[in-house]
Amino acid sequence: MNFSSQLIEEAVNAFSKLPGIGKKTALRLVMHLLKEDKEEVLAITGAIGKMRSEIRFCIHCNNVSDHDECNICRDAFRNKRLLCVVENMRDVISIEATQQFSGVYHVLGGLLAPLDGIGPDQLFLQNLRDRVISQEAEEIIMALNPTIEGDTTMFYISKMFAGMDIKLTSIARGVSFGAELEYTDELTLARSISKRLPIDTYVKM
Amino acid sequence: MNFSSQLIEEAVNAFSKLPGIGKKTALRLVMHLLKEDKEEVLAITGAIGKMRSEIRFCIHCNNVSDHDECNICRDAFRNKRLLCVVENMRDVISIEATQQFSGVYHVLGGLLAPLDGIGPDQLFLQNLRDRVISQEAEEIIMALNPTIEGDTTMFYISKMFAGMDIKLTSIARGVSFGAELEYTDELTLARSISKRLPIDTYVKM
Repeated sequence: MNFSSQLIEEAVNAFSKLPGIGKKTALRLVMHLLKEDKEEVLAITGAIGKMRSEIRFCIHCNNVSDHDECNICRDAFRNKRLLCVVENMRDVISIEATQQFSGVYHVLGGLLAPLDGIGPDQLFLQNLRDRVISQEAEEIIMALNPTIEGDTTMFYISKMFAGMDIKLTSIARGVSFGAELEYTDELTLARSISKRLPIDTYVKM
Repeated sequence: MNFSSQLIEEAVNAFSKLPGIGKKTALRLVMHLLKEDKEEVLAITGAIGKMRSEIRFCIHCNNVSDHDECNICRDAFRNKRLLCVVENMRDVISIEATQQFSGVYHVLGGLLAPLDGIGPDQLFLQNLRDRVISQEAEEIIMALNPTIEGDTTMFYISKMFAGMDIKLTSIARGVSFGAELEYTDELTLARSISKRLPIDTYVKM
């Protein structure tokens, strides 16, 4: 595309650096911003720039935070001896939305993927070990995606704490609530049969 | 969604003010920017903010421009007596991409839509009249969308120049190149029959 303005061209190029935004969508966004008040646009770009400049990562759990310690780690009502290991901040948001978890999180910042060059040193694993010892953790719940990388990471962590007096659990995997058996993939169904639970486990809930 | 960080929340809200971007997409964009270098992110927000702050509109054609006069109006090789009336800057980009037009543009900034409260005073129409006289225009090509608003605007402009020695034309409307008659809508097909042209018009091209 040939723009008659250098400023427009640079703004379109800036937008199209974002994932899932091509040149045409970028131009549509630029045209929308041209109609908005100057102050409004500067408020939008300011909020995004400020986020990137001032964001910090919690010294305990590695989650994004406005301060050295995140709101969850600072919360005195949270059980510091119950740790939930997750891949990224999006998983923290998802689990928080359920309002079912009263412990604290540990954000790994990724999953082990040796083929992509992501080894234990790229993740916040050493940090996890130190934390488990200093906080005298009783249980580590692993809430990782049910993929090869997730399972590899889960296996690695379970080896890390082998021989230590700590309970290691994983979130339940099985048929989703509201799903139909007919359309559930074989691996999920097979696993949900082999990991079946007594009915009173469900009735208690 | 409940974010553990105020900064993240504000950045997500900023992104979701853009058209077609919801909270989930906004969070995905924010997570992408968190992985980018700080300088890179500030370059992106800077380009967008600068565009909105410094953009001007050409004093002749009302197209977006970096200076008082746009590149097209400043170009000495452009025929200033041939004007192409378009709705917005996007249409200028589309027509420029064809490399078939050697005149200058006139951007209306919208189309007449009395029901939406857009009358002649909201568009750059008075400007067009002054320009036609001062530039001694020979022809006005109307490249407006084939909608009710487009036709209304075209009719209004043709009335504006009634009795003046100026050629008023419209871009050809008909069956698209590569389209199939079977799938062309009735209105387009009916119009393309009533406005049929001698075959040598096409052979010459």
